[in-house]
Amino acid sequence: MGRWEPGAGDRLREAALALYLERGFEQTMVADIADRAGVTARTFFRYFADKREVLFDQAAEIAEKSLAALEAAPASASTLEVVAAALDAVVDLIGSDRELARKRQAVIMANAELRERELIKLAQMSAELADGLRRRGAGDTEAGLAAETGAAVYRVAFQRWVDAADDLDLHEAVRQAFAQLRTLTASR
Amino acid sequence: MGRWEPGAGDRLREAALALYLERGFEQTMVADIADRAGVTARTFFRYFADKREVLFDQAAEIAEKSLAALEAAPASASTLEVVAAALDAVVDLIGSDRELARKRQAVIMANAELRERELIKLAQMSAELADGLRRRGAGDTEAGLAAETGAAVYRVAFQRWVDAADDLDLHEAVRQAFAQLRTLTASR
Repeated sequence: MGRWEPGAGDRLREAALALYLERGFEQTMVADIADRAGVTARTFFRYFADKREVLFDQAAEIAEKSLAALEAAPASASTLEVVAAALDAVVDLIGSDRELARKRQAVIMANAELRERELIKLAQMSAELADGLRRRGAGDTEAGLAAETGAAVYRVAFQRWVDAADDLDLHEAVRQAFAQLRTLTASR
Repeated sequence: MGRWEPGAGDRLREAALALYLERGFEQTMVADIADRAGVTARTFFRYFADKREVLFDQAAEIAEKSLAALEAAPASASTLEVVAAALDAVVDLIGSDRELARKRQAVIMANAELRERELIKLAQMSAELADGLRRRGAGDTEAGLAAETGAAVYRVAFQRWVDAADDLDLHEAVRQAFAQLRTLTASR
């Protein structure tokens, strides 16, 4: 058996999410996950630091890709266009598998500790985004406001996408939420 | 000594904040706080459930007053005007004592567990605000977006107010943040 097994990471993730939903996150042991995925616990720990990391291991890649998109946005882009570019990069990573996103969301919402962790990760991402906007020359308050507003748009669009019974593209949901924000602020 | 001592709650709060800043939150015991305030530990527990509650005991009143303002807003008010009315009620409670707000903020920012608790309280308030908007007839996505955007406006304005070297009114900071949001969304 090699150090990495083809597809083991994906199998482990699916097995973990299925078990978290069936038994609850607390009640699931790493050995159970490995068992269901047909690998050893040793193999599990080659992919994930612990059972919580199965849910949060994409955070670093999401932060990296969204900041790269922010840096790559043209100098002519408005602050909110830069934020939209960063969100598009997040959607590129998250938006292709709604079933997976649904399961992850259901697991997180069922557990107070996981909800807290998710809130903290989102707040960190928003703070990093604001720092990136400041590096591009946005004012201090403007950067904070644009990043926090972008996070709000993303959360609302994501929830709508996860809850939608019909086909809905996450890119489209984000675009619609931005449009709705414009309507809201214009009518005040 | 009566069950309640005049001013003991305020003295305890001031003593607690001073000690949290001097020694750190973890290192401060309830007995130290009571000592500094010139009361017994028994008296402390008549005012606060534990040393963390000194920082968060206003949350229930803030939620109650802001929801009352939301309910009281005229039917003709736009969704974001209703949110602004709810935020005004929050500012009425928070905005009169910047020194106190500064100290509280410094204590919370210095401690990961307190930062998490603050994030959770803010997320709960945003969710309650969204529910209130739905009860007033706002669409599901619109309510979520308006509440989350309002929370973003408030956080940014509050941070600016706390950081400001000069005189700044928190009501005014919130108004300016709303205006900045309109500029941001209009220029996209």
